[in-house]
Amino acid sequence: MEAAPPGSSRPTEPGPCLSGQRGADHAASASLQSAAGTEPGRHPLAVAAVLPAGGCGERMGVPTPKQFCPILERPLISYTLQALERVCWIKDIVVAVTGENMEVMKSIIQKYQHKRISLVEAGVTRHRSIFNGLKALAEDQINSKLSKPEVVIIHDAVRPFVEEDVLLKVVTAAKEHGCSDYDLEFGTECLQLALKYCCTKAKLVEGSPDLWKVTYKRDLYAAESIIKERISQEICVVMDTKEDNKHIGHLLEEVLKSELNHVKVTSEALCHAGRHLQQIILDQCYNFVCVNVMTSDFQETQKLLSMLEESNLCILYPVVVVSVHFLDFKLVPPSQKMENLMKIREFAKEVKERNILLYGLLISYPQCLLPSTLEKLVISPWTSNDDQKLQESLRQGAIIIASLIKERNSGLIGQLLIA
Amino acid sequence: MEAAPPGSSRPTEPGPCLSGQRGADHAASASLQSAAGTEPGRHPLAVAAVLPAGGCGERMGVPTPKQFCPILERPLISYTLQALERVCWIKDIVVAVTGENMEVMKSIIQKYQHKRISLVEAGVTRHRSIFNGLKALAEDQINSKLSKPEVVIIHDAVRPFVEEDVLLKVVTAAKEHGCSDYDLEFGTECLQLALKYCCTKAKLVEGSPDLWKVTYKRDLYAAESIIKERISQEICVVMDTKEDNKHIGHLLEEVLKSELNHVKVTSEALCHAGRHLQQIILDQCYNFVCVNVMTSDFQETQKLLSMLEESNLCILYPVVVVSVHFLDFKLVPPSQKMENLMKIREFAKEVKERNILLYGLLISYPQCLLPSTLEKLVISPWTSNDDQKLQESLRQGAIIIASLIKERNSGLIGQLLIA
Repeated sequence: MEAAPPGSSRPTEPGPCLSGQRGADHAASASLQSAAGTEPGRHPLAVAAVLPAGGCGERMGVPTPKQFCPILERPLISYTLQALERVCWIKDIVVAVTGENMEVMKSIIQKYQHKRISLVEAGVTRHRSIFNGLKALAEDQINSKLSKPEVVIIHDAVRPFVEEDVLLKVVTAAKEHGCSDYDLEFGTECLQLALKYCCTKAKLVEGSPDLWKVTYKRDLYAAESIIKERISQEICVVMDTKEDNKHIGHLLEEVLKSELNHVKVTSEALCHAGRHLQQIILDQCYNFVCVNVMTSDFQETQKLLSMLEESNLCILYPVVVVSVHFLDFKLVPPSQKMENLMKIREFAKEVKERNILLYGLLISYPQCLLPSTLEKLVISPWTSNDDQKLQESLRQGAIIIASLIKERNSGLIGQLLIA
Repeated sequence: MEAAPPGSSRPTEPGPCLSGQRGADHAASASLQSAAGTEPGRHPLAVAAVLPAGGCGERMGVPTPKQFCPILERPLISYTLQALERVCWIKDIVVAVTGENMEVMKSIIQKYQHKRISLVEAGVTRHRSIFNGLKALAEDQINSKLSKPEVVIIHDAVRPFVEEDVLLKVVTAAKEHGCSDYDLEFGTECLQLALKYCCTKAKLVEGSPDLWKVTYKRDLYAAESIIKERISQEICVVMDTKEDNKHIGHLLEEVLKSELNHVKVTSEALCHAGRHLQQIILDQCYNFVCVNVMTSDFQETQKLLSMLEESNLCILYPVVVVSVHFLDFKLVPPSQKMENLMKIREFAKEVKERNILLYGLLISYPQCLLPSTLEKLVISPWTSNDDQKLQESLRQGAIIIASLIKERNSGLIGQLLIA
């Protein structure tokens, strides 16, 4: 059962990506491909993966089987598929699920646009599920799109953080050492199954701490925190002008950099069709701070939201957008500006449907600054007291932005926060 | 080194408590005490605990030793001490820490008011630390406040979720079976140490999944989520009147009950010196929704904050207070009310120092309702449309309250949220 057509631009993983756009990863990627015998010009090793996913998760203490438990509203198994998918030299991924979960699994594959996935029915035990998966790979059916593999990776559906280097170790060991008597004797029965039904060599390889299995409810909590941390490593500050270095957005950018020193903070202008911004979206940045100074109200934020909605970025992870507005609380009461900004609640509801979490942030700044830029700084009676206040507001704004990005709290979307 | 004086009313643990005020737990508690030979009128078994806490946590991947890593701003080891402290039949708790962490440990004991704790210097290995702890218990020093125990529990400082029943199993096994040859052969060296230096019997007893050890960074994430979940099981809605069942606060209470069906929602009036409320605080409820209808602005919330500040409730866990205000957005623009409510930011900063997380929540309700009660409902042209709108606002308010309580996000304190 082939469940999804190949070839789409949906991102597969934050971080290094084999087929990816990131130049820095190309060298490492090439060497990995070579080790797996998968570099261009050489006959590639045919590798497939089988995921037994027929368990009912009785140790989890929740009614949903653990592989279908949601993390940031997406089922755990989708994260595991994503981790395998990004390894381009794994040609086929066969998932064994129970009959009653077959439709759920199909809808997961469709919704999250997973590729190279085939489904087989799970057996009554984990081993029988693996057997069914291996059989599907071994069969020479006319209608089957599966190619007979030389190496099969058996991977638990509830180990979402498998890294490519561990998978490569598995494949390399299988290729070099074959399946030893020791493994057959002391390894799990999976190894015997692989040899018996696929004539495929298998070997036990030591994993890494990252390869942990989601078993208890606490592991779901841990997985959610790890995933949230992974997608919060980069923030893009979107400016409504590209000309002015003294733009107040750049001040915010500087404060974000110093307050969140473990996070990569970049900035980009939205004008000129936002080509650079398109690249940042392609590079899988999941956090945007959109500065609205030059234009009225939400114009800039709305442009950004349209770009995000058109991209595939939000399919796998919720994207945070903080719409930032500056205001002199002494000159204009925040209440007045607030009324204009109330419509953010409606926008937020709309874009939540597309997996975008939108929040508003009002930052106070002293009167002597122009609404658009800080140019007046040189001619107006700018005091060190004003400067301190602005710094404090910006710092407070950075703390709020960091909190929103870290928690990805969908219960607080559409709120207008004040710094 | 006795580090803290005994006898204070600081709560030790959310949930069943041996010496506690909760009637329902008394029977279970008595039977436990009897099994441990600690019920009144019988010679109690002298039980002590030794916590080796000299590790440097190299597997954690963070510079702080894992036992000192903060969870909700409190070091992990304090949670473990709290779990042991609440077991009243453990007479002494000896913690072995390295010389360089001795002062940190003393300040932790003081800040979180831990009782029955003695400190000894850790050795270069875990076993030597245990040895030092046991030696302190065995010594007959004139200045020592420690009594020689019959049973010693050796417990890792990084297993914060130990339950009394497991500890009781350990003590009962030690009392009944003594220390078998099997345990000495195949158990850890701790058993031998205990026998050799304390003439104290020890035995390996199987633990529960709750007894897991914080080893990796992901375990800290899991521990934080578990702790947050534990202290979010009860919400008290504080009303500014006790008379009226139609009070809008009761409507909010009903919606909270239906939206958060796993959470216990109670309500209490603050008037008459808040005696019932005092009991709820003593019973360790960590979440308050304070309804301000009858009185202007924050009067009611301020009373509640004073009560909380006077109690010891906030020592161990951050307490969430959501100050709720109702307003007809059509009649009075939210902005106007907001300006009055802006001072919540200052209050929030102040009470944060006392470990109280204060947030504001403005709930819109239709014009035809009186600001104080729902009594007008019978005489005003109340339409089903109005009713729907109010229900939707209350539901939205419940979602926001649930989010604030679940996350305990200190970056968002003092914000005025809108439902």
